[in-house]
Amino acid sequence: MLLALCKKCLPKMSISLIEIAKAIGATLQLKTEEVAITGLAPLHLANNSQLSFLSNSKFKSHLTQTQAGAVIIAPDLAEQCSVNALVMDNPYLGFAKAGALFDDAPIPTAGIHASAVIDASAEIDPTASIGPLVCIGRYVKIGAQVTIGAGSAISDYVSIDTGSTLKANVTIYHKVKIGKNCIIHSGAVIGSDGFGMANDKGRWVKIPQLGSVILGDDVEIGANTTVDRGALEDTQVLSGVKIDNQVQVAHNVIIGEHTAIAAQTGIAGSTKIGRYCILAGATAINGHITICDKVIVTAMSGVAQSIDEPGVYSGSNPARKSRDWNKMVARIHRLDKLTQRVKALEATIIEKMEGQDE
Amino acid sequence: MLLALCKKCLPKMSISLIEIAKAIGATLQLKTEEVAITGLAPLHLANNSQLSFLSNSKFKSHLTQTQAGAVIIAPDLAEQCSVNALVMDNPYLGFAKAGALFDDAPIPTAGIHASAVIDASAEIDPTASIGPLVCIGRYVKIGAQVTIGAGSAISDYVSIDTGSTLKANVTIYHKVKIGKNCIIHSGAVIGSDGFGMANDKGRWVKIPQLGSVILGDDVEIGANTTVDRGALEDTQVLSGVKIDNQVQVAHNVIIGEHTAIAAQTGIAGSTKIGRYCILAGATAINGHITICDKVIVTAMSGVAQSIDEPGVYSGSNPARKSRDWNKMVARIHRLDKLTQRVKALEATIIEKMEGQDE
Amino acid sequence: MLLALCKKCLPKMSISLIEIAKAIGATLQLKTEEVAITGLAPLHLANNSQLSFLSNSKFKSHLTQTQAGAVIIAPDLAEQCSVNALVMDNPYLGFAKAGALFDDAPIPTAGIHASAVIDASAEIDPTASIGPLVCIGRYVKIGAQVTIGAGSAISDYVSIDTGSTLKANVTIYHKVKIGKNCIIHSGAVIGSDGFGMANDKGRWVKIPQLGSVILGDDVEIGANTTVDRGALEDTQVLSGVKIDNQVQVAHNVIIGEHTAIAAQTGIAGSTKIGRYCILAGATAINGHITICDKVIVTAMSGVAQSIDEPGVYSGSNPARKSRDWNKMVARIHRLDKLTQRVKALEATIIEKMEGQDE
Repeated sequence: MLLALCKKCLPKMSISLIEIAKAIGATLQLKTEEVAITGLAPLHLANNSQLSFLSNSKFKSHLTQTQAGAVIIAPDLAEQCSVNALVMDNPYLGFAKAGALFDDAPIPTAGIHASAVIDASAEIDPTASIGPLVCIGRYVKIGAQVTIGAGSAISDYVSIDTGSTLKANVTIYHKVKIGKNCIIHSGAVIGSDGFGMANDKGRWVKIPQLGSVILGDDVEIGANTTVDRGALEDTQVLSGVKIDNQVQVAHNVIIGEHTAIAAQTGIAGSTKIGRYCILAGATAINGHITICDKVIVTAMSGVAQSIDEPGVYSGSNPARKSRDWNKMVARIHRLDKLTQRVKALEATIIEKMEGQDE
Repeated sequence: MLLALCKKCLPKMSISLIEIAKAIGATLQLKTEEVAITGLAPLHLANNSQLSFLSNSKFKSHLTQTQAGAVIIAPDLAEQCSVNALVMDNPYLGFAKAGALFDDAPIPTAGIHASAVIDASAEIDPTASIGPLVCIGRYVKIGAQVTIGAGSAISDYVSIDTGSTLKANVTIYHKVKIGKNCIIHSGAVIGSDGFGMANDKGRWVKIPQLGSVILGDDVEIGANTTVDRGALEDTQVLSGVKIDNQVQVAHNVIIGEHTAIAAQTGIAGSTKIGRYCILAGATAINGHITICDKVIVTAMSGVAQSIDEPGVYSGSNPARKSRDWNKMVARIHRLDKLTQRVKALEATIIEKMEGQDE
Repeated sequence: MLLALCKKCLPKMSISLIEIAKAIGATLQLKTEEVAITGLAPLHLANNSQLSFLSNSKFKSHLTQTQAGAVIIAPDLAEQCSVNALVMDNPYLGFAKAGALFDDAPIPTAGIHASAVIDASAEIDPTASIGPLVCIGRYVKIGAQVTIGAGSAISDYVSIDTGSTLKANVTIYHKVKIGKNCIIHSGAVIGSDGFGMANDKGRWVKIPQLGSVILGDDVEIGANTTVDRGALEDTQVLSGVKIDNQVQVAHNVIIGEHTAIAAQTGIAGSTKIGRYCILAGATAINGHITICDKVIVTAMSGVAQSIDEPGVYSGSNPARKSRDWNKMVARIHRLDKLTQRVKALEATIIEKMEGQDE
């Protein structure tokens, strides 16, 4: 890999197709000469020093015209590719892995920035990178290769395990535990108080939230997402869970392994989401319910009741299997016609009755 | 109260039942010996040094099997309790008060952290705690026992009254007034510009937002919630209001005393919400409307028009009394059947007409 | 303009009507004597040293009773005004411009605060104002008259052009480009990773987001709004776009010039929004669709499919022209009546059939 860092310009890099094939686990099928790849681009925009991919056969018409230096492609489509091919079963996975080779996001240097405020009782691995103006509280443990971005605030007794990254301006409340290789984006707040109150003759009395939040390994938390601490037990986001921006996870929620949750979704208190679920954007999940493994909820749905069968669900009041929901919605959109039919029936009946009266 | 702070471990504490009874206003009924309580736990998980509570009679079956050291319980259920009981009319309130005894959230020390940037014109009570990397602008007034968390930014002319707490990374715009004993969670933004623009031949011209925001006493604002400043007058969140995470309060909104608003709810500009209301999660409230006192709006509802009668409301286009809304939703879910009935009627009519033709 | 700044009090200012008329482009029609204006207020609340405006003829009844020192008003209503009038075709625009004269938001001073952490490679115009505890990364370019509020974090290779303002606690990821005269409110995050993942046998593999975000000129971004960076190409928010609080703009979205987007709206990935559109609050826009110029989407709508005709759209599954949607909703609300009609028809048919059987 060639890497040229010149002052005042972005890093330029080029990687050979052989290296890329090895890194992403693909077989290289050279159509033209070997090229040095400098970046990635969509199939219809890529030039001959850029790598592209075809993961959706809908776009295979682009294959004949692409100018890409090479295309990551599935075996059954490889022969239709007019340029160099990197052949593998899951080209989209190949794209993800190739992207990592060209990622030019800043790489922080190990050590503690002079402007950071670190409590003397904190244990910080020497390979960790603590950015400018970070605040780290008492008895915090920061593992190896952890990165904490500028302006982030880590309260007392927090632990952050090996390889995790907090971007700038993240807030972690006391006692939160973060696993290995997590990524937490800016503005995210982990461990804020759950919304619990007792009512005393009209006035709300705060219920202290004595639990905390546990994030497993390989969890990603989007920008400005909030995960509240538990009332008595811990809120849990288990390993492999990926959460987008502006998602709200209320107290005592448990999210199962490898579940993905898109932006602006909200999960109310004490709900348990299964493993391998997908919640699309702007979905609302009721509190105190259970959603089993492998449930997909489509965008803007409202899930009021527990779901105990895997499948695709949509809508609200209640959410239903998407096929049923879509049928019902189609019926609603034909309500006008149904009303006309009823009107016609009424007219016919009246006419007939009048006919009989004669 | 025993409080042992040992280095590198969380504080341990134990409190006698007599002390707890006194603190929460309950009557102690000893079944077994007096025990030292070290924390709280749910009824089915508590061990004999933990305190639990029963506030929902749905869970009273747990009473016979609980291992709890004591249970906070209502008078009518107290005799079914097999362990020590702390008897009071509102056990959930007792739970809230007991929780405060065991809250191990960090207690900040009075004084201004060396890394904070404080304008010389700011007046800060010596009992206030100003955390690391806080920025406080000109002519700010910070009252007694106020806590400002790490990284928070307080702009000019803000006043924060006695006993209020801002967690880490809170932002307060200029001239905002915050009452006594408020809690503002991380990422919250108070006093940002309302979304006001005049249109000048297709281009938007900003309307400067000259009002501010007033928070009353005992207001809680959730993580990443935003409260915009008024255009001419002030946006007001009155005393006792509790707001959850990621709520949006637009300019010139007034929220009446002791109203509670759950996560991801949005209230559009110039709307007035009454006292003792509850807005459930992900609800949208239209602008320029009035909602009277004691209105409950269920989750994901969209309130487009004013509500002038207390009660429970649901749905949208428009929101209706929940009973009516639920009936209508049930009708929608039976649309398929209704369509079948119309089809059957049509068949019958045609058959009869054909019969008559013969 | 008279401007008196006294210590420990807010700035007081007064401006003559002649000056205001000139500044906002109105014609002054004196009814009483010339007055010195000290601020703005609504028509029914203004006193005789305050300026008001009438932009909605619904409120013209206030004209006869207003105590305002002057009223910004359209020519056709000017003669009904009992006090001094500032006459212009677009009084609401006049109000916006007059507001700017009385805006008492803090005016930052040029220069870099001693507590800011600035990388040596950053180029910062001497007229820019870099607030306390700001962090600015490598090779950042900050233009003339730019303001960066306290606690904001600007990552590497960012450029911010002349006259733009970032409020406190804003986060800008690497390589983001911000145009001239933009305003970005607190808690906003620009350039966070798009939510892109490949699935590898149940596990999610992150797709590095190699694009960035481009904001045009005169863009306003609300508090706690998030704009994700593109996967390969850039997310673009074009000139004149105004975005409210807590809006989510996903990766590769393009928002056309002069479009306005209200709070809590979400736009999913790769969608293209046209110019001069208005998306009302809490709206969800699907990914990979195109919305043409001059489309208005009403609040809480869900737009699943592309829209290629200007107009007002509402609802979801799919969103439709508002008139059609409202008709359909009215039908739904009359479902009960329709069901009764079907029931009556059935009864009539049965009766008739029984009648025939006799």
